[in-house]
Amino acid sequence: MTTEKTITIALDGTGGDKVDGKSIASAVRFAVTLCPNLKVLVFGDQDLKVALEREKIDSKAYEFICAPECIPQDEDPRRVLESYKNASMRKAIEAVRDHKADVIVSSGGTGPLVTLSRHILGVMENMRPALCARIPAGPNKYSLMLDLGANALSTSKDLLSFAKLGHCAYKALYDVATPRVSILNVGQERNKGNALVKEARDHIEEVDQINCCGFVEADKLFYDAADVIVTDGFTGNVALKAAEGVAKAFLNATGIKKFFSKLSRPDWLIPWQYNGSLLLGVKGLVIKSHASAGNEAIAVALVQAAKHASLKIVENIESELKKLN
Amino acid sequence: MTTEKTITIALDGTGGDKVDGKSIASAVRFAVTLCPNLKVLVFGDQDLKVALEREKIDSKAYEFICAPECIPQDEDPRRVLESYKNASMRKAIEAVRDHKADVIVSSGGTGPLVTLSRHILGVMENMRPALCARIPAGPNKYSLMLDLGANALSTSKDLLSFAKLGHCAYKALYDVATPRVSILNVGQERNKGNALVKEARDHIEEVDQINCCGFVEADKLFYDAADVIVTDGFTGNVALKAAEGVAKAFLNATGIKKFFSKLSRPDWLIPWQYNGSLLLGVKGLVIKSHASAGNEAIAVALVQAAKHASLKIVENIESELKKLN
Repeated sequence: MTTEKTITIALDGTGGDKVDGKSIASAVRFAVTLCPNLKVLVFGDQDLKVALEREKIDSKAYEFICAPECIPQDEDPRRVLESYKNASMRKAIEAVRDHKADVIVSSGGTGPLVTLSRHILGVMENMRPALCARIPAGPNKYSLMLDLGANALSTSKDLLSFAKLGHCAYKALYDVATPRVSILNVGQERNKGNALVKEARDHIEEVDQINCCGFVEADKLFYDAADVIVTDGFTGNVALKAAEGVAKAFLNATGIKKFFSKLSRPDWLIPWQYNGSLLLGVKGLVIKSHASAGNEAIAVALVQAAKHASLKIVENIESELKKLN
Repeated sequence: MTTEKTITIALDGTGGDKVDGKSIASAVRFAVTLCPNLKVLVFGDQDLKVALEREKIDSKAYEFICAPECIPQDEDPRRVLESYKNASMRKAIEAVRDHKADVIVSSGGTGPLVTLSRHILGVMENMRPALCARIPAGPNKYSLMLDLGANALSTSKDLLSFAKLGHCAYKALYDVATPRVSILNVGQERNKGNALVKEARDHIEEVDQINCCGFVEADKLFYDAADVIVTDGFTGNVALKAAEGVAKAFLNATGIKKFFSKLSRPDWLIPWQYNGSLLLGVKGLVIKSHASAGNEAIAVALVQAAKHASLKIVENIESELKKLN
């Protein structure tokens, strides 16, 4: 028996590269076992319904809602908005808007997720929404990095927006008064880099409440060099994928090396252990799971979603944003 | 006794973060031991001269030339050109121009190295010079990736130039008729990414002789997904540093994990084993060693430099470029 408040997650059950009914159902079972105060609203097709029933999950812990349409990852934004009225992604986001769920989790395409979230939930005042990952920075330590691809092109003012959102989110998540905010660049020195990052640095330095620590290089991403790492969506996406590629090369050793690899790897760097990016800047809690995530990774995203919802981070970000000049 | 032609390397002995006389001298000793047909012209200060003497290297294998000035990594390009007449970097590049050396190796700042190389050696017709790394793509396999930071800002025409240089360099280095040329992007699909990469793709596709394979994602960088990976200098620099940071996190395991890490690591991914980037597009062979490279890494750069010089890759690139429409 738990006295914790129940957290309701709306789960988009059709998006993602690897997502079959069995993976989703198994992730739901993992998550509700780990978090007894969780309720999952699963939006999906008939196959998923059957898979859920097979997992024999406590019927009070989840609810299935039939929403069989799947939005292709690269669908045109206009068509995303005009069509797909029965898409599981749309229905799951609407559940957050209608206060039937505290948070939505999707492994669907970034484009459709950002487009629908902005449209259905609305955008925080003057903010440019960004996808924000919690990246490992040592054992039990995380940095927030944004944008990771919500925007194809960013201005220096957009980067200022990301810095504000990251600052407020870090405060809300980790209860640190003045998180160190840095901009990803090709060098640490003030005169390094292109006009975008230099202008962004100047804008961020003008915000008194933000502890702007200048530039950070990509080889320091996982070394706790900054609490919030600000970057444009193109660079951020490339940097994180490059890091994941190398981590997988080390983890996917074969033969006898595989055995030693398991004994040697830094546990805090295992990619699926930090699945689940936040879409910051929209008026509702939206979590993007990796498109090719396996069931452990989706379960991690669900558990993180519950934690973020219980911290009321959207409400906290909105009230922190009001304190910035 | 060897009948191979002697290769002469001009080594800039003052640049780099970690470069003390002892590291440089020790790298020279490693390199000339590995390659008996090597002669190194070492440009540097008095300390370096003493360090070289202490290493007891065969006096026929190297020559010391006093050029004590060091150009700061972030020196203004105009000052780089107008001052520093006795800089070791300048003198070493001039040795290549004057046919006293086959190749120059420097751990100095990318900015000064690119500025001086362009000025002293000249640029290949219509080309935009780019820094090109040989990145591991599996055991005994490499991809070429460029630009890694010779340019702070690139246009789509610059990326076309990088594609041409990479195509020609790959042919010269690995004797492959039609290397696979791809552009680094946030997704593989044709409609993914920003205008820069899409326009670059269109330009590259117009060159009949280049085997343009579209886009490649950063998590495939080390998986032999392309022979030549084209990117702007900002993104390329960030991607490679992100990868290096993760590799180091795995390699720098501590305690018992350190032991298992040595047994498990994929040997082809050890960063210092592929030190030494080529500055392509200038009329002379210029190799940039990592600024924070230790002595093994500098030795690797010297050995690679000798190999590239013996392949006459600058001459080969120039003749291959003439074949492109």
